[in-house]
Formats: sequence, structure tokens, C-alpha cells
Amino acid sequence: MFVKIMRHQTKTFFTFKNVKISTRNISNRPDFTKNRYKITRGNYNYLHEEHIHYFQNLLGESRIVMDLSDLEKYNVDWFNQVRGCSSIVLKPKTTEEVSNILRFCDLNKLAVCPQGGNTSVLGGSVPVFDEVIISTELMNEIVDLDEHSGVITCQAGCILENIDNYLETKGLIVPLDLGAKGTCHIGGNVSTNAGGMRLIQFGNMHGNILGIEAVKANGDVVDCLSTLKKDNTGYHLKHLFIGSEGTLGFVTKVALQCPARPKFRNVAFLGLQNFVKVLKTFKLLRQRLAEILSAVEVIDTPTMEFIKNVNSQNSPIGEYPFYLMIETSGSNERHDEEKLSGFFEEAIHKGLVLNGIVANEPAKIQKIWSVRENIANGFKARGSKMLQYDISLPFKDYYNIMEPIREYTKDVSETVFGFGHMGDGNLHLQIILKSDVTEKIRSKINDFVFEKILELKGSISAEHGIGLLKAKYMDKIKPQSSIKLMKSVKKLMDPNGILNPYKVLL
Amino acid sequence: MFVKIMRHQTKTFFTFKNVKISTRNISNRPDFTKNRYKITRGNYNYLHEEHIHYFQNLLGESRIVMDLSDLEKYNVDWFNQVRGCSSIVLKPKTTEEVSNILRFCDLNKLAVCPQGGNTSVLGGSVPVFDEVIISTELMNEIVDLDEHSGVITCQAGCILENIDNYLETKGLIVPLDLGAKGTCHIGGNVSTNAGGMRLIQFGNMHGNILGIEAVKANGDVVDCLSTLKKDNTGYHLKHLFIGSEGTLGFVTKVALQCPARPKFRNVAFLGLQNFVKVLKTFKLLRQRLAEILSAVEVIDTPTMEFIKNVNSQNSPIGEYPFYLMIETSGSNERHDEEKLSGFFEEAIHKGLVLNGIVANEPAKIQKIWSVRENIANGFKARGSKMLQYDISLPFKDYYNIMEPIREYTKDVSETVFGFGHMGDGNLHLQIILKSDVTEKIRSKINDFVFEKILELKGSISAEHGIGLLKAKYMDKIKPQSSIKLMKSVKKLMDPNGILNPYKVLL
Repeated sequence: MFVKIMRHQTKTFFTFKNVKISTRNISNRPDFTKNRYKITRGNYNYLHEEHIHYFQNLLGESRIVMDLSDLEKYNVDWFNQVRGCSSIVLKPKTTEEVSNILRFCDLNKLAVCPQGGNTSVLGGSVPVFDEVIISTELMNEIVDLDEHSGVITCQAGCILENIDNYLETKGLIVPLDLGAKGTCHIGGNVSTNAGGMRLIQFGNMHGNILGIEAVKANGDVVDCLSTLKKDNTGYHLKHLFIGSEGTLGFVTKVALQCPARPKFRNVAFLGLQNFVKVLKTFKLLRQRLAEILSAVEVIDTPTMEFIKNVNSQNSPIGEYPFYLMIETSGSNERHDEEKLSGFFEEAIHKGLVLNGIVANEPAKIQKIWSVRENIANGFKARGSKMLQYDISLPFKDYYNIMEPIREYTKDVSETVFGFGHMGDGNLHLQIILKSDVTEKIRSKINDFVFEKILELKGSISAEHGIGLLKAKYMDKIKPQSSIKLMKSVKKLMDPNGILNPYKVLL
Repeated sequence: MFVKIMRHQTKTFFTFKNVKISTRNISNRPDFTKNRYKITRGNYNYLHEEHIHYFQNLLGESRIVMDLSDLEKYNVDWFNQVRGCSSIVLKPKTTEEVSNILRFCDLNKLAVCPQGGNTSVLGGSVPVFDEVIISTELMNEIVDLDEHSGVITCQAGCILENIDNYLETKGLIVPLDLGAKGTCHIGGNVSTNAGGMRLIQFGNMHGNILGIEAVKANGDVVDCLSTLKKDNTGYHLKHLFIGSEGTLGFVTKVALQCPARPKFRNVAFLGLQNFVKVLKTFKLLRQRLAEILSAVEVIDTPTMEFIKNVNSQNSPIGEYPFYLMIETSGSNERHDEEKLSGFFEEAIHKGLVLNGIVANEPAKIQKIWSVRENIANGFKARGSKMLQYDISLPFKDYYNIMEPIREYTKDVSETVFGFGHMGDGNLHLQIILKSDVTEKIRSKINDFVFEKILELKGSISAEHGIGLLKAKYMDKIKPQSSIKLMKSVKKLMDPNGILNPYKVLL
């Protein structure tokens, strides 16, 4: 067995490519969603001249998009999977404007589609028909930062990475990190209960969001914008808006608890022989790195092949059946390094890890992270040839789901690969098809995958939500009592059903 | 300045008193709540023979309490502040029984009062009139533990400390710790969104609760009992039950994410000169102890006087204007001690801390903690001579509220003291009156205190909830839009208003 732990090594590092997730390639447009998925338009009104006049009076012409070519990027999702045909995008700047728009749409029974950075994986952020798109693009102000408590209050349209860059200057960090950070809006993160790579360290949005201001379908502003860490006065309404994907209200402001920015960071990239050793290594990581363990990402061999093909990036340590990317974030450089060394010694002694590399300089850390962060860059070009699954599974079965799926899809798939946030039991499973397939075959594959997930007591959506593309599975995966309650909550919050229709609940 | 940091010192330690919070002294009973607070009974039916027969058939006579003397402990709260006059306590063992009880009560318009360990500070857990008490006393089974993921699933009536003792044998810890842990039920903790002493380390219930099973007023079981760390399928309904104090549903089961039990713990008790130094010390603690800082409790001089009087406990380090009790929980003994030493060196060098003691042996740690944990033991005897406030304030104003309140109440108060979870901006402010006062004077004091809190942008209930005693303030402290939405959510979940009436929303 070849064991080599290389600290601060540089020769195997690749060039960091600053591929922004925000670029849109609309030359290869998908079919209209309404046709592809044979969806029936809801009983909403169509946009009339008088509606447009109202919006023009409210926002001025400069904050309304109606030009066909400009509209395209709001009508098509980043993954090129879905395409709506909205003829108008509104760009409010204030909560009051959002309130006026929604009140008007509700009275006039115009369906709306709230949109942040439009990075939804499941078609949740683009219209299906002609919904009025309300974009948070211009709601990008930081309202307040309490440096004592680390609570930042900002508008929903702030880009996650911009918030983090701002906080960095104050010694704080956003407790959320995901591949789309350069494009996604905090309002969208809240609305989809985004998870990402550092949930293992910081916990989820329900724990970190202290306050939300949102607008109901009828234009009522719901002010739950507390900035206190503890506030037990009445129902905790803000959670209704976390994870409901814009179907219960339009999030306009967010107050977020931000921890102190860790002073020292180490990232290690490990090669392992099989998944049993991955599991054992994960257990050891939790014991040895404990309070400084901030991310544990797993990558399998076919994922690394995919990365090589689409991003021209190689594994920085040569080829192995499995890779773990682990990160520590601590307050004492020597302590962190000692803990990491202790982990390595034991991992090597126990024969768990075959090879590894560690970096502690920001540029090198970024290079290692880019292997993981840029995976999704290859997805768009595959469009509908790609089936994406975002799965939660109990740890013991985390990777067991792969083989039956490879077997089931062997005639139609080019490759089936898995990577993800191992620390949270969250696997991103991808199937790339040899060629585009009929909706029927696609449905059969989905059914098979979802059945397997349910057999293993997992979730068919760990962090991407339901959006449009998984809505039809809700009845199969949730108890009827939950569906019934969800529907009555929807009816309460949005009696005319104007908010993001065709999504989440059918 | 006398600076002395004593590691492993024993001579100033006091005897640990295992005073269980569960003891009930009902000899000194408070007035009936309905009389004292002049509350009008809701339009509910009265308990008839036929109702009792139904309950007897369902549960058997052994699980129904109707004897007057046995009923008393369910009708009176732990703090001897409120007293209901229920004539029946039901003790279901299963979700199905809870469902049958609620369905029957809803159909027969009988009001109910859900009750866990009955440790509510604000009268939330006892009836006001003749509500049927449904106790979780016998719902005390651990349903499942996934040792890989650390997720425990248990019935609502499990006592917090029992869960923790069980988890200790598995190397895990409950991410919640409060004074009432020996009595309070996990269902009550969830229903009140309990905070406690280690929120700074583990985060809040919204972040740590993975799943909830609850029964609606009409008997429908809402199954949101996911045990996955990430599950974004549909609305996150479970949060409706967290912090709504049993008014939206009856929590029957809970799935809780439990972290690895920290291997090493240190507790330090520090003496400080003034509150400015407390604030500076807190900042230094966050910098130096960062990821291992698991609790920061502050105690002022009059609190220490109170502790001395009621528990015969002295400060283990002599007398100082302020005390900080800090705790570290880490995975490497030497690293933790080095971090702590580094903190002490700097704190002494900067003249922040006057004296201190550190303990790392469990028995000694428990002795130090008992100073803080036993404070509430003195509250009950004071009954209505005591005004209790559970406040959240922005850090910079954390203690600024004390002086105006001392000044305002100087003619009627014996002492005004403050202690609490500094790490969360959560202050427990107590006023002990010279003698019992009229409701009018009590109301005036409350109004003054609440006005000051709102001036400082704080919360009038950080972690104790609203219960009965703060319900009348809701209109003053919450925006009308929130109250309106809360009322419509209540109407949706419990159209007949049978669940815990007179609490939270009036």
C-alpha cells in the first residue's frame, strides 16, 4: 500500500478556473415546460395593457423587462431543463413595491413567479406559463450589521458571496456555502432552505435565520424580522417561509446569525479504496477533528472522470476508487494541525486512507475546493440527457443505492456517478444518458430511484426542494396527513394560488 | 488588583445539593387563576358523566386522575403562580390514544390543557378553568436511536435528563440543557422552543429537531417524523409545533439530532469588576475559546446574595460585582487547556478578570454548575412576591436595563437581580417585592419593564414563551400583521379553540 501525506505540496495542483455559475448559454434552449410536461394552465388572467400600465407607473419602465431576448434568461433555468413563456419581469427595490405588486396581482388573479438568482435545480425559479416574474435582482442592500452579535439584516436579493465578502471585512462568515454562491440570492436560499457544504459545522437555515420579512399573496407584509438570538413570543411564523419555495410568501428581508470567521482553515484531499473505508474514515474524522470539522465531501471515481472531461481538472493525488475532501476551521493553527496530524496517523495506521494532500494557504485551498465546486459546470451542456437526484440517506446505506441504479439503467446510461455532503448523509446522484429518452423511460427511472430511496428510508430531496420537477411525487413520498395540512396552509396564505403555481404542491 | 487563577483548587468548593426541581410544595397554594386574573371562561362544554365513561373505556381507570388531592399538582404550576381547577387528568401512552382523546374533545367542545413536566414559568402548562389535562407522563419511551447519525426518536413524555443519561452510554449528548432537566419533558421543550444553557454551542430547537409527530385538535396525526439531517420535501410543518406552546397541536414524538458527547469539559468561575469588563471578557472568550466555548453565564452580586440566602451556597471565589461562569467542551484535553490558559493570560494581562477558578473533574464541574442551576429553587417560596422576566437584549445593552428598573421599583422591591445566558443575549431579571402588591402595581411594573425592553429592541420573552401570564402583552409587542397571521394559523389548526385556551393568543 502506497501511503503518502503531502503537506503544502504544489506540483499536482491544477490551474484555478474562475468559472462563474452566472453565465447563461441560451443557444441550446429546452422545450417549453408546458409542452414537455403536458401541464394545464391554471385559471389565471392573462396580462393586459392595463396591468402593464400599473406596473410601469409603480416601477418606471427601466425596472420592467419585456423585450423578448432579454426575457429569455428569466424564462430558462440554469440547468437548461425547463422553459417558461413569461412576457414580463418586474424588478422591485423595496418591500412596499413587492407588496403593491402582489396585492395588484392577487386582485387581478395574475399568477407570479418569484425569482432570485435563478439557480434552482428543479425548475422552481422559472415560470411554467406566462407568470409575472418578480425578480429580487435590485433588492440588494445590506440593511444593518450588529458587529457585537454578528447579526446581519439584508434584502432578499443580496448575492450570497457578496454578503460573505462584506462579512469577511468584519471578521464574520455567512453560515452557508454552496456552489452557486456567486449567483444565488439569500432570499432564494431561505425560500429553498439551502443546505450546502458547511451544514455540518454551522447547522441549517432554520437554526441560523433569526428573522424574516415576507409579503403574503394579498400584499400583507409579515414582519418577523427579529434580530435576537432568542425570541419566544408567539408562533414562529418565519419558518413557514423557509423551504416553501416562494409558494407561501415572497421573502423580502432576512436577518441571519453569522459566526466569527474561523481564523485557520485546512483542506485535505484523500484517496480511499472502498466505501467501507470511507465510512470508517468518516467516523474517525468525527472523533479526531470533532469541533473543527467543517466539511466532509465524498467523490466517487466516475464523478472524477466527469470532472476531468468537463473541467479538465484531475484529482490532485492520482486515481483512487473514492475521494474525501475534508475541511477544518479552527481558532488555533497549531491545535488544528495537531488534530489533523493525529487523524492522519491513525487513518494510515488503520489502513483507511491510501493517499492524501493537505493545504492551508487560501489559494491552494481554493484550488482543491474548485474540484468539488465546479462539478455542476458540466451539467448544463447535458441538459435533458442528465437525470439529477439530490438524496438523503441514513449513513449506513449512503452509497448502497448506487449499484442497483447502475444495474437498472445500464442499457440507457453512459455513466452513473455520486458525490455530495457526506457529513449530512446527502448524496448528489447523477445519471448521464447515452441519448435523450422519452418521458416514459425518464419516469420509469425516476420511479425506480425514488422507490429505492424510500426503501432505504431516505429523502428524494435533501436540499434542492421540490420545485416543478418533483411535485408529482409528493403524494407518494409524504403521508396524506402532511399533504392535507400543507394544502390547507397554502390555501390560508395564498387563497387564489397566485404564488409560484405548479410548484411543490399540485 | 488581586489576580489569582486557581486550577483544580478544592478548598472553596461547597457541598453539592441534589435538589430535584420536581418536588412540589402545595401547602402554600396560589389563588385560582380565573379569580386573580379575572378571566372569562370560553364557551366550552363542561365535563359530563358520558365524557368520563368514554375516557375510562379508552384508558382504563388507572390512567385517569380524578381524586382532588392528586389533581392539585397538575392544577398548580411549579412556581406557585397560577392555579386551575381541572377535575380530570388523562395519561395516554400512545399517539393513537392522544388522537382519540383530542377527536372526542373536539367533537364535544371540551377544552384541553397539554401538560409535560409542568415546569412552565408563565403558567402555560396548567389549566385556567376546568380544561381536561392531557399529561405526557406515560409517553416515555425511546423509540429508536441511530448511533451512526446520532438521531434519537422518542415519545414526548421522556424526561430530558433521562434522554441525556441514555445518550451518555452511547457517547452522545442531548443538544439542550436547562435547570429543569430532571423534570421537564422533551415534548414540552419542543412546544416551548426551550433554550437553556448550551444554545451557544448547539444552536436552537429549530435547528436540532429533525422530526415531529403531532396530533391536531381534531385528532388528525401529522407525521413529520423525519430522522434525516436534510429533507427538503414540501413545507417544513414541524416548525409550527416548535414554540407554539401546545396551542396548535399536541406533540407526541420527537426526532432529535444529537452530537457526539464532548470528551473534555472545563468550567471556570470568574470574578469581574464591572459590566464593561464583562462585555470585553465575553469578546475575548469568543476569540480565544471559539469552537470549544459551550456556555457563558453571567451572575450579578444581588443574584449571588439570593443564592447564598436560599441555597446556602457561596461564590467559590469570594465576592465580586459580577461573575462569569464559562464552560469549554472539546475533543483534546491539552488543546482545550492551552486555549483556556491563553484566555486567562490575556484576560489577566488586560485587567479584565479579578479572580477565577477552573475545574475539569466531573464532580467539581457539577459543584460549580450547581451555583447557577439551583437559583430557581428559591423562586417558588416567593410565589407572587416575585416578578420574573426572561429578556433578550442586544449585547451592548444587556445589563443597561437593570438600573432604571431598580430605580423605578425602589419603593416596593426588596431586590432586583439579573443572571442568564450571556452568550445568547438572554437575561433572567427578577424583582423580589417587599410584600405582595396589587395587580395594578404589578401591571404598572410590567408595563415599565416591557417598555424599557422594547426601547432597547429586545424581546419580552427570550425562552420562556408567552404562556398565560404574558398573553395580554402580545398586541403591544408584535406587529398587527403577525398577530393576524398567528390568529389565522390558530383558526386553521384548531377551529374550535380547544387546545390550551387563554394562552399565547387572546
